[in-house]
Amino acid sequence: MTQMSGNSSIKFDKPVYLTDSASIVGKKEGEGPLAQYFDVIGDDPMFGCNNWEEAESTLQKEACTLALGKAGLTSNDIRYIFAGDLLGQLIASSFGLMHLNLPLFGLYGACSTCGESLSLGSITVSGGFADRVLCVTSSHFASAEKQFRFPLEYGNQRPLSATWTVTGSGAFILSSTPENAKAKITGITTGKIVDAGIKDSMNMGAAMAPAAADVILSNFRDFARVPQDYDKIITGDLGTIGRTLLIDLLKTKGFDISEQYMDCGIEIFDPKSQNTDAGGSGCGCSAVVLSAYLLRKLISNEWKRILFLPTGALLSTVSFNEGNSVPGIAHGVILESL
Amino acid sequence: MTQMSGNSSIKFDKPVYLTDSASIVGKKEGEGPLAQYFDVIGDDPMFGCNNWEEAESTLQKEACTLALGKAGLTSNDIRYIFAGDLLGQLIASSFGLMHLNLPLFGLYGACSTCGESLSLGSITVSGGFADRVLCVTSSHFASAEKQFRFPLEYGNQRPLSATWTVTGSGAFILSSTPENAKAKITGITTGKIVDAGIKDSMNMGAAMAPAAADVILSNFRDFARVPQDYDKIITGDLGTIGRTLLIDLLKTKGFDISEQYMDCGIEIFDPKSQNTDAGGSGCGCSAVVLSAYLLRKLISNEWKRILFLPTGALLSTVSFNEGNSVPGIAHGVILESL
Repeated sequence: MTQMSGNSSIKFDKPVYLTDSASIVGKKEGEGPLAQYFDVIGDDPMFGCNNWEEAESTLQKEACTLALGKAGLTSNDIRYIFAGDLLGQLIASSFGLMHLNLPLFGLYGACSTCGESLSLGSITVSGGFADRVLCVTSSHFASAEKQFRFPLEYGNQRPLSATWTVTGSGAFILSSTPENAKAKITGITTGKIVDAGIKDSMNMGAAMAPAAADVILSNFRDFARVPQDYDKIITGDLGTIGRTLLIDLLKTKGFDISEQYMDCGIEIFDPKSQNTDAGGSGCGCSAVVLSAYLLRKLISNEWKRILFLPTGALLSTVSFNEGNSVPGIAHGVILESL
Repeated sequence: MTQMSGNSSIKFDKPVYLTDSASIVGKKEGEGPLAQYFDVIGDDPMFGCNNWEEAESTLQKEACTLALGKAGLTSNDIRYIFAGDLLGQLIASSFGLMHLNLPLFGLYGACSTCGESLSLGSITVSGGFADRVLCVTSSHFASAEKQFRFPLEYGNQRPLSATWTVTGSGAFILSSTPENAKAKITGITTGKIVDAGIKDSMNMGAAMAPAAADVILSNFRDFARVPQDYDKIITGDLGTIGRTLLIDLLKTKGFDISEQYMDCGIEIFDPKSQNTDAGGSGCGCSAVVLSAYLLRKLISNEWKRILFLPTGALLSTVSFNEGNSVPGIAHGVILESL
């Protein structure tokens, strides 16, 4: 395994294989442009539970069970779980995954957590410390709105810069061997916290775009690459406003990624018919789009190499109400076709 | 690096060196039995800031700066930070560490996060992915009470089973080379979520003891060890009630750890003169006791090998108020003298 010097990236000389994955989403996501690709679409936003948090736990539980089932594995075949969600104290993960009875590393990188879990999972597998790990993240529109913004019953107006938190969970099995593999992870670029001074909790795209730009620039520098070295550069949930900012920021640094650029949050909803404003967001957004849609493009060899870059806004109602800005972070993962 | 099969542990054939560390605590901790060992004792619970959360961020910032200074390093010598705290969205870490401008993995394992950060840091260093990493965690009595329990102004009565959240932060530099090393990390045992069904948010010791027992038993099994193979087996913050439960639980499994057992939460305060009931707790408790006190015993060779086991109660006011129990988790780290 090559360790790159003086920067933020790792190139895995021993690549990590993505054996299988699963996606489960809510009704609204199941009515969007990617509907045909998801493994499971739930009709009931409560997923048979008594509250939003338990519903989100159920999403994680079902995504893991489904990923294991698709791969023909059981929890005994998994060595570690790398998991996280948006809720305080990661309760969606804690209560959703305890039945798996597996050693667990709880992670928080806001909506970038899918990238963080794939990064740490890859380090652990490529380093020879695990044959197989499970990486899972989730978000739920209602549990997120309740925690971060307003009670749903209040019916607040949403500005056009707002994003719609995706109800969904994506689970990924990483393996040290290529058996049944769907794609491989060949490198990561880990994000720093970047504070652009954004104080608008309804404009997360602006809070995250500078962090995404920083990781993309680090990735280009560390791997001596240019935008054309990737078939796609795909952020997690910048939305339409963050998209413009990111492309403009990188142009000032001499890189034009507009040809390669894609955003999971922009792909998952139709803003006109679904009233989702700037796009989808949340830990679950990038996870379900990777599992359901992006991986298909790598499996079919339509794409050879992508930079997958879940983006997170470190929004906290406590720090926000104390007058602080919303810093951003992003975690880049390089995925390649086999 | 040996990967152990069918269980929860890693033995690092290439050991990870603990280069240096630092501890900073509040006034109350500085009046306790370990006062003489801490690097910095703050007189002002606000640490010069405007609110409790910023005070906790300052603790992390200062602990990192001090650890780097003691080691004669700068942030340029560090490849990754593994950090976490108890606050929602890890705001103590986010705002405390952004000035270091380093790639960061945010972690949440409640009060076990110090063990989680040392575990993932060790995997990354031993796997050859980093020369040096920084592992830092914190807690603050007032920010934790505000988030998890009652406003301080309310002056609620505390039951005897309650613990007192430690105000403090501990930072550790892990390195791939033995230069200037103080101790080494030779293995880890990673915890599962264990739910003993405890529904008393003022009795975290009971919530965590079963998770600690599970990790200790896994450690004994995975490394074929018995209690006598360790000079000390040290939990993070079980307190006096958790201590009794843990020792009793392990006796039913055939192991008597009462000779080796120690708890950071019991060591840090004098319950009689300091009114701290069952003991200290929090992400910062195990971190500052490891840095200030436990490491000294390894450096002096009074102890050769310890099992350090920060313990976490996955308490959330949301899940708790919805009627759920408080599951526990623990992350074991084996530290040895040089």
